[in-house]
Amino acid sequence: MSYPASTTTPLYLTGNQAGLKEFLDKFDVGARSPECECVLWSGDHLFPGTVETLELLRKKGKQIVFVTNNSTKSRADYKKKLEGLGIPSTVEEIFSSSYSSSIYISRILQLPANKRKVFVIGESGIEQELRSENVPFIGGTDPAYRRDVTADDYKQIAAGDPSVIDPEVGVVLVGLDFHLNYIKLALAFHYIKRGAVFLATNIDSTLPNSGTLFPGAGSMSAPLIMMLGQDPVALGKPSQAMMDAIEGKFQFDRSRACMVGDRANTDIRFGLEGQLGGTLGVLTGVSSKEDFVSGPVKPLAYLDKLADLLGAES
Amino acid sequence: MSYPASTTTPLYLTGNQAGLKEFLDKFDVGARSPECECVLWSGDHLFPGTVETLELLRKKGKQIVFVTNNSTKSRADYKKKLEGLGIPSTVEEIFSSSYSSSIYISRILQLPANKRKVFVIGESGIEQELRSENVPFIGGTDPAYRRDVTADDYKQIAAGDPSVIDPEVGVVLVGLDFHLNYIKLALAFHYIKRGAVFLATNIDSTLPNSGTLFPGAGSMSAPLIMMLGQDPVALGKPSQAMMDAIEGKFQFDRSRACMVGDRANTDIRFGLEGQLGGTLGVLTGVSSKEDFVSGPVKPLAYLDKLADLLGAES
Repeated sequence: MSYPASTTTPLYLTGNQAGLKEFLDKFDVGARSPECECVLWSGDHLFPGTVETLELLRKKGKQIVFVTNNSTKSRADYKKKLEGLGIPSTVEEIFSSSYSSSIYISRILQLPANKRKVFVIGESGIEQELRSENVPFIGGTDPAYRRDVTADDYKQIAAGDPSVIDPEVGVVLVGLDFHLNYIKLALAFHYIKRGAVFLATNIDSTLPNSGTLFPGAGSMSAPLIMMLGQDPVALGKPSQAMMDAIEGKFQFDRSRACMVGDRANTDIRFGLEGQLGGTLGVLTGVSSKEDFVSGPVKPLAYLDKLADLLGAES
Repeated sequence: MSYPASTTTPLYLTGNQAGLKEFLDKFDVGARSPECECVLWSGDHLFPGTVETLELLRKKGKQIVFVTNNSTKSRADYKKKLEGLGIPSTVEEIFSSSYSSSIYISRILQLPANKRKVFVIGESGIEQELRSENVPFIGGTDPAYRRDVTADDYKQIAAGDPSVIDPEVGVVLVGLDFHLNYIKLALAFHYIKRGAVFLATNIDSTLPNSGTLFPGAGSMSAPLIMMLGQDPVALGKPSQAMMDAIEGKFQFDRSRACMVGDRANTDIRFGLEGQLGGTLGVLTGVSSKEDFVSGPVKPLAYLDKLADLLGAES
């Protein structure tokens, strides 16, 4: 069996034992990167066979990396989430967009000493990862920013009053924020207008929950993109800044790595643009068979569900 | 003097008495439509000469219509605002995007009897104008929607539970909302996914205040546009739905009407696309001389400030 180029029709591997074995053998060293939500579970519901599948992969010596664009959780939060679902993991196996963003800010952006502070739109996961890289920040979950805009705010923001506009802010980082409000958007806009770098943990417009979709991190950036006429640098999938960070940490051979995911335009694109040896779509999430077979971004192969990999052993 | 086509270099009329007189004479019957903010005042500061200029125009028999995209105020609110600044006006002279939206919903959209309710993202101005047209609505300033999203919300929204998803909602109307939050965005998204018509009072991404810019009504729609991959029908300038509504009310001759405004891409475009006889830019707001002279949307003429019209008399 020879593998088709990723622009040709993907292989359907569910129930194809020989095909599954060959597929798994092809990726015995590289990072295997399943998006967690919609691949391993949906909401609080673990897909049947998930734990056994991960066990099989580990038994075969595969390095597993959980790559997630969910920016509301830190890596430690994610480990807890996985454990709660009965999935064994380590913090080191987890790569979240909040972690990726923190690394980008602390190690790649060359910020002047007096512009090192980050204004955060997002939840505690971002804050924890910024702390882990010793990056100073304001905003985020601070209750002082969970309030209505006032007449004084307009005047003070317009005047650049240091009581509301911190002169040390050199970065605006936007992730999923369940407490997004007018004052946060106004401040983010003014910081960027004053020269701050505009970053987004990720650009997924929606967030899967309870079998449907809700506003995602990309939707938090949307008002700013419209006001500024400027896109953020995005640090989650499919941004290759995230792939570079993963590679820097795990030192794997890209030709022997496979990206597994449910979204053609983020997960599969991430693997293809990162020139990984393989990409594997699963049909338990956002993209349909139609998307994988006929869409513009085709995985190397696809399965009905991740646990179909167990068919390699049956 | 002959008037250039609106795609050629606009006339600079400040200090040009003969030019000003000729310009004013050209528009002795039509609706004169200044955007209020940035034309008459900025923040709470009335530009010098505004009242005298309006007096001059009224003395010359011009019908004045205050056309505003500000959706947070009703027409009655606007009259109060004008009076507070010392500008005499009547409710009938005022045309706001909230009023335009209400007319569109009540008189133009043919909604089934069981889908007549509007889910509002916006402030009380929209609510007052919906009431004036007897349009039922939910959302808006209701404190029940000014809260954090809960785990139950996800499940209930996903299930279409009538305790959170009102089955009679047939329209989502998005205007400027100083209390925008996650739950409102999530509900608006689900109503539209379930078939509700997606309307926006206006698409201005920014709102002028205190000499700078803040998030505008267009920014409230931006997350939904990104999630849905769909633009709303916009009822404010430059939408011609608003021009049609103004014409329906005032029965004026478009060739003898002049649109006055500070924004090339909304005010001036509104007048040009509505084939008004004239468009007049003022430099006290968003667009610069560069925008008016070299941009893609050129007014027929422009002034440093509205009160320069007084030069016709000096």
